[in-house]
Formats: sequence, C-alpha cells, structure tokens
Amino acid sequence: MTEAKTIQRQALPEPTLRRLPWYLAYVKMLDGQQVAHVSSTQISKALSVDSSQIAKDLSFLNIKGKTRIGYEVHSLAQTLADFLGFTQHHRAVVIGVGSLGSALLSDVGLSQYGLSIVAGFDINQALVGRNVGDIPVHHIDDLATWQNQHHADIAILAVPVEHAQQVADLVVNSGISALWNFTPVRIKAPERIAIANTSIYAHLAIIYNRMSVNNNA
Amino acid sequence: MTEAKTIQRQALPEPTLRRLPWYLAYVKMLDGQQVAHVSSTQISKALSVDSSQIAKDLSFLNIKGKTRIGYEVHSLAQTLADFLGFTQHHRAVVIGVGSLGSALLSDVGLSQYGLSIVAGFDINQALVGRNVGDIPVHHIDDLATWQNQHHADIAILAVPVEHAQQVADLVVNSGISALWNFTPVRIKAPERIAIANTSIYAHLAIIYNRMSVNNNA
Repeated sequence: MTEAKTIQRQALPEPTLRRLPWYLAYVKMLDGQQVAHVSSTQISKALSVDSSQIAKDLSFLNIKGKTRIGYEVHSLAQTLADFLGFTQHHRAVVIGVGSLGSALLSDVGLSQYGLSIVAGFDINQALVGRNVGDIPVHHIDDLATWQNQHHADIAILAVPVEHAQQVADLVVNSGISALWNFTPVRIKAPERIAIANTSIYAHLAIIYNRMSVNNNA
Repeated sequence: MTEAKTIQRQALPEPTLRRLPWYLAYVKMLDGQQVAHVSSTQISKALSVDSSQIAKDLSFLNIKGKTRIGYEVHSLAQTLADFLGFTQHHRAVVIGVGSLGSALLSDVGLSQYGLSIVAGFDINQALVGRNVGDIPVHHIDDLATWQNQHHADIAILAVPVEHAQQVADLVVNSGISALWNFTPVRIKAPERIAIANTSIYAHLAIIYNRMSVNNNA
C-alpha cells in the first residue's frame, strides 16, 4: 500500500491508465476462479493487448512476471487495485441532481472502486433539503461553507451544459481539487485541479456512427 | 436529415467523434443565448481546440463557415445533432439491472440524445417480472425471443465482470447488432457488431492518479 502510493506519484500515460483496469477486471475474474498464475501471453489473448505492452504497463507498478510461471494472480489483483486507488477511500459530492446526477447518487457500485458519495448539490428548491437515496441534497450556494466542514475530495459535475463552467468555478473556489466532469463541456480550471471527462453521450455518438457505418456496409 | 444520414455512412475518426459533441454542447448553449453566428476562433477559444482542427472536423459534415461571419449557430446545432444521431430514435435494452444498470434505466437524460431504454434483462428472480422505473425487467434467457418481437437496436451491458463475455455472446446471438459496454471487460465480438466502451471506473482511476500526482507535486 505504502509502496503503491509512492509509485503512484508519477503521472501515468492515459492509455496505460485505461488499460490497467482491464487487467484488474481480468485477474479479479481469474482470482475468483481460484487460478493461481497467469502469463502475459494469456492476458494478451484474453484482452487483445500486445504482451510487450502489458509487461510495459505493469512495469509502472514494479511488477514483473516470473519466467514460465507468469504473474501471481491474487497479488497482481491486489497490487492493481491499490495502485489504481480503488482500495483507498475517496469522498465525492454530486453537483446537479437531475436524472444523471440522481443515477450517480444511487450507484452503489462506485463504492467498490473507493468512492463514497456524501452529498448532492442543486439549485432546485424542490430537491434542496431532501435526500436522494440516503444522500442529503444541499443548495449550491452552500457548497463552500459545506466543504469547509466536510472536505470532500472530488466534485462530480452533472449540471446542464449552460451552467457547467460557472459551477466548475464554484467548485474550484470551494477548495475541492478534483472534478469528474460528466457534461460534454470542456471545463477550464487551474492546472492544480485534477479533471477527468466522462461524457457518456459522446460515447453514444460513437456507437451510433458505427451502427450507421455497419448498416450501410 | 437525409443528407446527414448519407454523410454519416463513413466511419469517422474516434477523436473527431469525441470532439463533435463538445462543439454541439457549445453551440446549443450559444443558441439558447440567441447568438446568431460563431467563428471557429471563438469555438477554439471556448473549447481549447485548434481552430484548423475545428474546421477539419466540421468538414466531415460538409459544413463551412463564411468569411468574417463564421458559422450560423442554429443550423450548426441542428446539423451536428442530426449528424451525431441524437435526433433519430434508437431503442436499447439494459442487461444487468444492478446498481449501474438501474441507474441507466432511470436516466431520462439519454432520451435527449435519441436513446429510449425499452427493457431490462437480469438473472435475478427478485427483479424478473418487475418494473424498474417504467421499464419491465425480463429474464436473460428470454432475450432472443424478446428480440425477435421487439427489435432493439442496442444492448447496454452492465453485468458483473465475470459474466460480461458470456452475456455479450447471448446479445450477439439474439441478433442485436450494437453493444454499449459499461463493464471494464474487453468484449470479443464479430466485426459487424458496433461496440462502444464506457468504463466509468477506468475514468475514476484517471482522476485518482491525477489527484495523487497533484497532492505530491
């Protein structure tokens, strides 16, 4: 754990960070099937990733397979989960408790990946003061005061497009230093703010495009 | 509409497909503010995308800005929405009605992007035969029979990792030709199946990594 944290201080290439969860999903599955060892060739076949790429990605974690035996499945799963931050405890607020925001508030699956959602914020007076699931919803104007007391790590942005930048500015001013952006807006924020963009609607555009290409092939 | 469909038959580069929804979000916002025209320089500043890249991306839609005036905001928004498939009607099933799957079943926001969720499928007898929101949940064994009658366009995969490939095979065999994969598993499927991967947990890994880098800078 300590070692993983130490290693983690370097910024990893984003493609590596996207592949590591694939490896984790695969070795967790093997671990559940009581498989003890796995070779990079096996991982490569299962995930269609070049085996030299796998070795390179895992070298960021100081993990090396043993000749002929390969990687030890259980410890590889643990090291990957630690390294990816999934075994630590992060606290998030959801800003914008509309349909997507409420869905995220109720997604208990996130807790398996080290994320607890502790509060929601909105401007809608019909929501403010109520709970969604077990999570209290506060007025967005109270964000900075709330944050002073509760110190959330991450703000999840799920507001309408036209308010996205303005609300992101509120988040930054409140002292929250990481922003998980679910809007299709390109947020501008200081360098010190960690941002990840998850525009699920952009992925819809990708699947629609592939469907129309395939239908007309 | 017809023209957009005709153009759409070519497979677009994925980076272009990821940027087009940013342009759409931005010009929709301008449209709401009654702005009539926008230049590629303005879009470039707002979104931090090179203006020559914007011109190139939009050329896939046969859209050209006019010298000094730029693009007409309202028609650009409409053309982008048409082109991205957001104004067409697509029907999807959600497979795996756990926490993420239920969240997706209740995300009415998807309908603004041309997607209606019409049914859920699961193996959990406590869910089968019930409704989540207004959406009926059926047993996964009934998928092929159901699909013969209802012809969904897209299957949204939100099952546990260890069942992902097996359930993807069921989807392919049922005749559904597009798979929106929310699991962190690399799904193998025939070339003719359109796949988009949205592993929101992989994005969590990205934000955790950036946070730990920033905290230790």
